[in-house]
Amino acid sequence: MTQPTAAVLIIGDEILSGRTRDINMYHVAGELTRAGIDLKEARVVSDDKDAIISAVRELSEKYTHVFTSGGIGPTHDDITADCVAEAFSRSIDIRDDARLLLKAYYDEAGKELNEARLRMARIPDGAQLIDNPVSIAPGFSVENVHVMAGVPKIFAAMLEGLLPKLNSGTAVISKTLRVDLPESTVANPLGAIAAKYVDLSLGSYPFEENGAYGTNLVIRGRDEDQIQQALVDLKTAFKL
Amino acid sequence: MTQPTAAVLIIGDEILSGRTRDINMYHVAGELTRAGIDLKEARVVSDDKDAIISAVRELSEKYTHVFTSGGIGPTHDDITADCVAEAFSRSIDIRDDARLLLKAYYDEAGKELNEARLRMARIPDGAQLIDNPVSIAPGFSVENVHVMAGVPKIFAAMLEGLLPKLNSGTAVISKTLRVDLPESTVANPLGAIAAKYVDLSLGSYPFEENGAYGTNLVIRGRDEDQIQQALVDLKTAFKL
Repeated sequence: MTQPTAAVLIIGDEILSGRTRDINMYHVAGELTRAGIDLKEARVVSDDKDAIISAVRELSEKYTHVFTSGGIGPTHDDITADCVAEAFSRSIDIRDDARLLLKAYYDEAGKELNEARLRMARIPDGAQLIDNPVSIAPGFSVENVHVMAGVPKIFAAMLEGLLPKLNSGTAVISKTLRVDLPESTVANPLGAIAAKYVDLSLGSYPFEENGAYGTNLVIRGRDEDQIQQALVDLKTAFKL
Repeated sequence: MTQPTAAVLIIGDEILSGRTRDINMYHVAGELTRAGIDLKEARVVSDDKDAIISAVRELSEKYTHVFTSGGIGPTHDDITADCVAEAFSRSIDIRDDARLLLKAYYDEAGKELNEARLRMARIPDGAQLIDNPVSIAPGFSVENVHVMAGVPKIFAAMLEGLLPKLNSGTAVISKTLRVDLPESTVANPLGAIAAKYVDLSLGSYPFEENGAYGTNLVIRGRDEDQIQQALVDLKTAFKL
């Protein structure tokens, strides 16, 4: 079976200006790994029409799934829905089911469903809605592009509802071995063992602790037996 | 004067697997904003030769500067230097000045400059070295691509030395106004004011505090007078 792949597209000037620290990329990376979907690329682009459209087109052609975050709120700079529609040459308009969801929500809150709020019911033609259990305004999927909110709590809730509906793969297993040696010392033996296990990925991540250098060795793959063998090889090489 | 633009390219499977949370993107975003360089795009790609080469080529053609993070250590999966050389069709080999830096460092530490460590002296032909005051192994610049380490402390130190040497622009000024109203309420008046100031960027960032929704309005631009006028308009509109 071919493993499904994915890209994440974060939309928002506030990340690129350094004003806001992105949280969604780290969250979705962990969730996709657990779901057996290989996250191959992540991008951050600004609230710019051409930048969003070209990233959506390029990533949706290249990967099984694209997950976007940001730009679907009620304000003038929320242009993601229109850009995704244009990327797929679809029309976009206020959709009845989305409008009714918002109307019920604002009615209950005693608030008017004004023009700005109605913008959040604009859905590209033929899209599937993505539930928003936090603040109702839905996300949507067009073909393989899943459009979600940027607010981390809403993004996480939308993703949680969406992921079980997608075709996923065999989850990657990962084992970490801590070695109290600098990366430049472990490099040669590690390289030899990595060359032996071509179906596994062996990575090394240096750290510093109380002034001493160490390295975390991470074995990643889908074959439990091979991972165990590689772990034994590493322990032998580093006398652990 | 045209403002310089930039992209950031983070290289590393550990970010895409969700194992490690990226810090460098947030750090460089803030530093570039302060330096008056417009960060237009950020990407994360895996430790994959083709992915790195094509991202380096595409981003270096598109932006004034490209800053990379990760993949220049001593291990088999550190392939950034070779990929950058290939992206610019340059040869790459161990360079004497880089080798001497490393030799002095490891001599003093009583350690051997082994084959793995020597990998860190591999520099593409014609590159400028970037100082590494933390652990000596240098980064380098090839044309407009600045190649730095992934370890956050080293990345930050390299960037600090590099930035004053680059052509920068007029720094963006940013003012934030907190409004204790949900984004869907501020959207219409905000949109009208945004339409009036075409040279400024007006963004809205919703938050939740103790169960109540509020919005931070952010004005960004390079003309202090215009920013002050827009701030007065916003305060008037929201009775602040």
